[in-house]
Amino acid sequence: MPHSFSLRVYYEDTDAAGVVYYANYLRFMERARTEYLEEAGASVSGLHNQGMFLVVTHVDITYRRPARLGETLNVTTEVEETKAVKCTLRQKVLRGTELLVDARLTFACIDADGKPRRLPPFFNPQSAS
Amino acid sequence: MPHSFSLRVYYEDTDAAGVVYYANYLRFMERARTEYLEEAGASVSGLHNQGMFLVVTHVDITYRRPARLGETLNVTTEVEETKAVKCTLRQKVLRGTELLVDARLTFACIDADGKPRRLPPFFNPQSAS
Amino acid sequence: MPHSFSLRVYYEDTDAAGVVYYANYLRFMERARTEYLEEAGASVSGLHNQGMFLVVTHVDITYRRPARLGETLNVTTEVEETKAVKCTLRQKVLRGTELLVDARLTFACIDADGKPRRLPPFFNPQSAS
Amino acid sequence: MPHSFSLRVYYEDTDAAGVVYYANYLRFMERARTEYLEEAGASVSGLHNQGMFLVVTHVDITYRRPARLGETLNVTTEVEETKAVKCTLRQKVLRGTELLVDARLTFACIDADGKPRRLPPFFNPQSAS
Repeated sequence: MPHSFSLRVYYEDTDAAGVVYYANYLRFMERARTEYLEEAGASVSGLHNQGMFLVVTHVDITYRRPARLGETLNVTTEVEETKAVKCTLRQKVLRGTELLVDARLTFACIDADGKPRRLPPFFNPQSAS
Repeated sequence: MPHSFSLRVYYEDTDAAGVVYYANYLRFMERARTEYLEEAGASVSGLHNQGMFLVVTHVDITYRRPARLGETLNVTTEVEETKAVKCTLRQKVLRGTELLVDARLTFACIDADGKPRRLPPFFNPQSAS
Repeated sequence: MPHSFSLRVYYEDTDAAGVVYYANYLRFMERARTEYLEEAGASVSGLHNQGMFLVVTHVDITYRRPARLGETLNVTTEVEETKAVKCTLRQKVLRGTELLVDARLTFACIDADGKPRRLPPFFNPQSAS
Repeated sequence: MPHSFSLRVYYEDTDAAGVVYYANYLRFMERARTEYLEEAGASVSGLHNQGMFLVVTHVDITYRRPARLGETLNVTTEVEETKAVKCTLRQKVLRGTELLVDARLTFACIDADGKPRRLPPFFNPQSAS
């Protein structure tokens, strides 16, 4: 079962076409994966305060159906692959059981100078030993 | 006791000064008053779907202390005054008991042609009879 | 030569990691392709006012290097392929000659009921005859 | 003559009520005053890179008429009052000669520790001697 994060659509999320603006699904996905990581023991803000930043390097996102004002959406997050320096997630936005938006997203870890760093052991349990 | 709405600060909310971007507190306040109204029986999206829009006409907002990535904030909402065509709310953003941002906000109701409309009876119970 | 659109990075665009927030490049790209289409004779707001909405259906975006506060960026837009009901663009964000972000983006045209519509003749000149 | 900054309204700026979302006028105003300060010789990003941040402490904003997709707006900026540690601006959003939004906004200068600092001499020419 992937991690699930629930949110409501407010005016801030929508645009004049009456639907959620396409960039805002990336905001929803940041919220969902932050909560996923937090619950799994890897705090994004904790890393930030140590000068380590998780940065998105690639997103492939398909918009299938629109979401509208007032709807409750669920964003699911699953790890698809982790390597020493990057991690690929699968994130989906659903309304009930209906798939609205589907994304594959890769992030890496950099330090305050922008240099790549190994991901924290959380992401690669086997390499932590 | 005013209505209270809780949220976490994500990267999307912050700016390069390391704090929540000033405009984003207005987004937090929209979320909080939407939930307040929903719980009180006046659905913002329900009104929207009937072609009635709650529009903010005035905000007076004071930024006292900054909020930062990963913090949990509470947004409180209280009705200060309601008239036939407008309603003034007091909304505050707190971190624990510490007041960060304090606003007085007035909204009105318009129809799809932008014409002012009386607020739904919810806002003026005495005039609903 | 692809169409080029210039913008400056403001605090609103950045996040607490000190760089432009990943979702905001999609906002930059909307601005650039709107200006591209406007100059080419296809007004996004004109279509909107006729009840026809250009909706993004797919984005593949690679983040290579970060942009920072105060920098001037250029967003280039080129048509990669047009079909009856969809159009694929290549959009890049550059700082001088340095490539920061690179995207392939597909959009379609829907009407107010969400039904797919043929793209306006502008996108398929050969089919307009 | 106040400083004037021109912008076009894109989908990113609007909401499902078909108008510019109320918080986004604060983004427009940041853009306008950044350009005003830049042209006047006080670079916001230059200050930022020296660890000095201009932070908004108060906004009083009145929304008179809505702006819509595709419209060209002008944001005017004038200094109303400057003191050693804060500066109050008057900023207006106009569509042609029609006033849409009117704000009075105060900002101060803080350092990386959040401590108040005197505004750069630019803001108080008489005190720079």
